[in-house]
Amino acid sequence: MLRIRGGLRTTRPDTVAAEEPLEIRLAGKPLAVTMRTPGHDFDLVHGFLATEGVIAGHDDVAGLRYCDSVDADGRNTYNVVDVDLAPGVQAPDTALDRNFYTSSSCGVCGKASIDAIRTRTSYDITSDGLRLPLDVLLALPDRLRAAQEVFEKTGGLHAAGLFTATGELVALREDVGRHNAVDKVIGDAVREGRLPLSGHVLMVSGRSSFELTQKAAMAGISVLAAVSAPSSLAVELAREVGITLVGFLRGDGCNVYTCTERIALPQ
Amino acid sequence: MLRIRGGLRTTRPDTVAAEEPLEIRLAGKPLAVTMRTPGHDFDLVHGFLATEGVIAGHDDVAGLRYCDSVDADGRNTYNVVDVDLAPGVQAPDTALDRNFYTSSSCGVCGKASIDAIRTRTSYDITSDGLRLPLDVLLALPDRLRAAQEVFEKTGGLHAAGLFTATGELVALREDVGRHNAVDKVIGDAVREGRLPLSGHVLMVSGRSSFELTQKAAMAGISVLAAVSAPSSLAVELAREVGITLVGFLRGDGCNVYTCTERIALPQ
Repeated sequence: MLRIRGGLRTTRPDTVAAEEPLEIRLAGKPLAVTMRTPGHDFDLVHGFLATEGVIAGHDDVAGLRYCDSVDADGRNTYNVVDVDLAPGVQAPDTALDRNFYTSSSCGVCGKASIDAIRTRTSYDITSDGLRLPLDVLLALPDRLRAAQEVFEKTGGLHAAGLFTATGELVALREDVGRHNAVDKVIGDAVREGRLPLSGHVLMVSGRSSFELTQKAAMAGISVLAAVSAPSSLAVELAREVGITLVGFLRGDGCNVYTCTERIALPQ
Repeated sequence: MLRIRGGLRTTRPDTVAAEEPLEIRLAGKPLAVTMRTPGHDFDLVHGFLATEGVIAGHDDVAGLRYCDSVDADGRNTYNVVDVDLAPGVQAPDTALDRNFYTSSSCGVCGKASIDAIRTRTSYDITSDGLRLPLDVLLALPDRLRAAQEVFEKTGGLHAAGLFTATGELVALREDVGRHNAVDKVIGDAVREGRLPLSGHVLMVSGRSSFELTQKAAMAGISVLAAVSAPSSLAVELAREVGITLVGFLRGDGCNVYTCTERIALPQ
């Protein structure tokens, strides 16, 4: 790597964030491929299956293992995970990247996407009674940053952290893909039987999209907080399902886009 | 939106980045759905099809139109684009999100993903003879930012800009999805018959992933520059196909990860 800073040029090795494909299979049949940072792969698989509505909890997974992908030298690549669903759990009949609108007879639009998520979410997020003190919320970015190990070295990883209502870190995961970091955090909770994550805060680096809000909704998370801006569909979905959506959470401020009553402001 | 800055709290309307699904169909058959910011949709479709290797240029598209998705009130949602390929152009036989590794008999790994892209890229990027002056490169972030219209208002859009070797902006597109912003920039060039984009620089906000590098490679782009960090597979793919990959391009510096000989340093 050639490093240029003003007049100073140096050539030196550099650490970059690892990225590898992961193929998720159901009973040997390919379901999805995602480009992810290796590590916590079983969390990723559980989180992906839960937030896509394939499983409701860890009981729906009978078993999973790295399977038969080997490189040219015959070594396991650890890039394929095969999942056996428990008896009675239905495998989806379609590619998962396309299941967010209901059917070809409805209009393809954000409203249809939101309706589809509402139908599939099994948790009532609105009734959690959570009151999150503002100072706890404002402290989350520093806590997330402090817990990140890899970020300082590569600058190339997205982070997702799950916090309690008192600001305790439950789990932190990092990944080249934002959706993967969130899937890993949620998957960790799935494996420990802790869904729904009512009363919890999910904090993400970067922005809030429809997809991240969908994942939070499917896990029953009360508050989704992001360092940067939300999209229009993220705001609309959060409002529909009752998630408190926080953006631009940095320094001594933030924007609260939906369900503001959960944030307890000091007098 | 509740805006909190220190002790100051205000409730006011806010502008957020628009996000809506776009379904791309080939001869009426659904091919892919992406969550995108509406606008420049035909660019997006051309860029997506070109960077996924479905079309080689605009001659491969016989026609395209918004088609029959209507909302509950019977209004066109403008969220479905149907493409007719020119006679003799083969439609892909599989979901496009999964075609980046060669076959189930090979190991699922980054190397296989890179080999697949190398096989599908029809352009020789290495022979462009480009020498990009460092001061032109360092000026690109400011030029990109100056050309962004929406960013200042929402803070929620990713940007991609195509520049000539003298730093002239050819096209700028913004989107909630980084890959969509890149597809729109490349699609604009596809529609005007300007591929391969040899000697050009693609500048993106955010990070460089395998996917963005793949898109640059498929368009024959010489230099991919990003504000933030690259992933390991982005570096490896850039090296394999001969793209100059620049990261952390900000202020008076940057990191050049591959093919450094294209950057003309002042004496």
